[in-house]
Amino acid sequence: MTPSDLLDRVRVVLLHTTHPGNIGATARAMKTMGLRNLVLVKPKTFPSEIAVARSSHADDILDAAVVVETLAEAIGDCHFVVGTGDRTRTVPWPLYRPREMAEHARSLPASQSIAVVFGREDIGMTNDQMMQCNAQVQIPANPDYSSLNLGSAVQVLAYELRMAALGDDQQVPGRRDWDEAPATQGDIERLMEHWQRSYLGAEFLDPNNPKAAMTRINRLLARAELDQIEVNILRGMLSTLDRWVARAKAED
Amino acid sequence: MTPSDLLDRVRVVLLHTTHPGNIGATARAMKTMGLRNLVLVKPKTFPSEIAVARSSHADDILDAAVVVETLAEAIGDCHFVVGTGDRTRTVPWPLYRPREMAEHARSLPASQSIAVVFGREDIGMTNDQMMQCNAQVQIPANPDYSSLNLGSAVQVLAYELRMAALGDDQQVPGRRDWDEAPATQGDIERLMEHWQRSYLGAEFLDPNNPKAAMTRINRLLARAELDQIEVNILRGMLSTLDRWVARAKAED
Repeated sequence: MTPSDLLDRVRVVLLHTTHPGNIGATARAMKTMGLRNLVLVKPKTFPSEIAVARSSHADDILDAAVVVETLAEAIGDCHFVVGTGDRTRTVPWPLYRPREMAEHARSLPASQSIAVVFGREDIGMTNDQMMQCNAQVQIPANPDYSSLNLGSAVQVLAYELRMAALGDDQQVPGRRDWDEAPATQGDIERLMEHWQRSYLGAEFLDPNNPKAAMTRINRLLARAELDQIEVNILRGMLSTLDRWVARAKAED
Repeated sequence: MTPSDLLDRVRVVLLHTTHPGNIGATARAMKTMGLRNLVLVKPKTFPSEIAVARSSHADDILDAAVVVETLAEAIGDCHFVVGTGDRTRTVPWPLYRPREMAEHARSLPASQSIAVVFGREDIGMTNDQMMQCNAQVQIPANPDYSSLNLGSAVQVLAYELRMAALGDDQQVPGRRDWDEAPATQGDIERLMEHWQRSYLGAEFLDPNNPKAAMTRINRLLARAELDQIEVNILRGMLSTLDRWVARAKAED
């Protein structure tokens, strides 16, 4: 295994970045660690000469960057998605330290894609954005002053990914030998939509606040990192509920 | 041992820094990781408003920074001095990776002081400067593009020092601060029995071979390590299905 076997499967996703200089700094940090894939969700200013200047000859990363409209588009075909942030969530998400995140990424089968998502500079990731991720990664910064700038946060996580990629070839306990193909984030998103629709129809969820229960289901499925057979079984179970509800209602 | 027991014994030494913005970025990177001691050897411009602006509220580090004339003065009272650089030396110096450097620093007696030295932005450390160090530390960057800027290099080494200072305390795979009590094996067993009963009643599972699907649900729930709220929500969802099935069947 060469480092690029892992690093080429990682994409860095920046959400709604305000300052183009930070996009350039991100490209530079990525390239120093051998990462290549940058996806920008609705950047305020891009392309930008400021980004090119700050990238300091990492402009090939900027040239190849993909710009999309939504986080869902950015990660739809990924299998393991981590959101960055140091905020404690109302509903705590599975939490990794950078090194563990990188080791987990390394333990995944070679067919899987990984996304590391960074929020907007001033607000970080929202709860809704974090819920689209399998886990949260937190840099264990000084609690009295945890404000890494965007480029520095990318640098630290990219560094850990590179260290994991360089790591010795010892067997990592993990899911490299899983028996089924992993679900993509798009699969999960459709499953969650189906789940909410079904249990609204079945009058289990509060129509005014379906999230109360759905956030917890979402978190459960996120950390389980579903495979495709599991998604199919769960979808089948939801369709079963749909049919019984329709039958009972039709007979009313 | 608290992190500051190690971090307070570390000083960051910048040699002949050209751009004051890099001094500010260094202060910020240091403070995010809990380092406090900055020594500047003949900086081109210091103090500087640019440094203060880039430090982003880490100006207490700048205010306390010590300015000296020579590297010898900067490190005279230190016990372990590492120079940074990715160049191979004519006479190879003892070479550490960042993590090994930090582990070594942590292994030193509490009475010893440690210095991490960074060369001028454009030329790095000279051979003469490196010879004043006990060892060289090299960030294992992309060999095709190894140009971390000064602030990023400080960020990575400070991060490793912090990780070493946090020691085993930081080995938390995720769930130390989970919000709900974990489910017991008994809870899981009853959930699985309910699940199978419900989907047999709903005619989703094959009565002759319910395990085909249930084994996969079981494995999914096992690796998710459910908490009690999650068990309750899933039980509630199963009971919902039970009611709709009963209602449809009653009306037949």
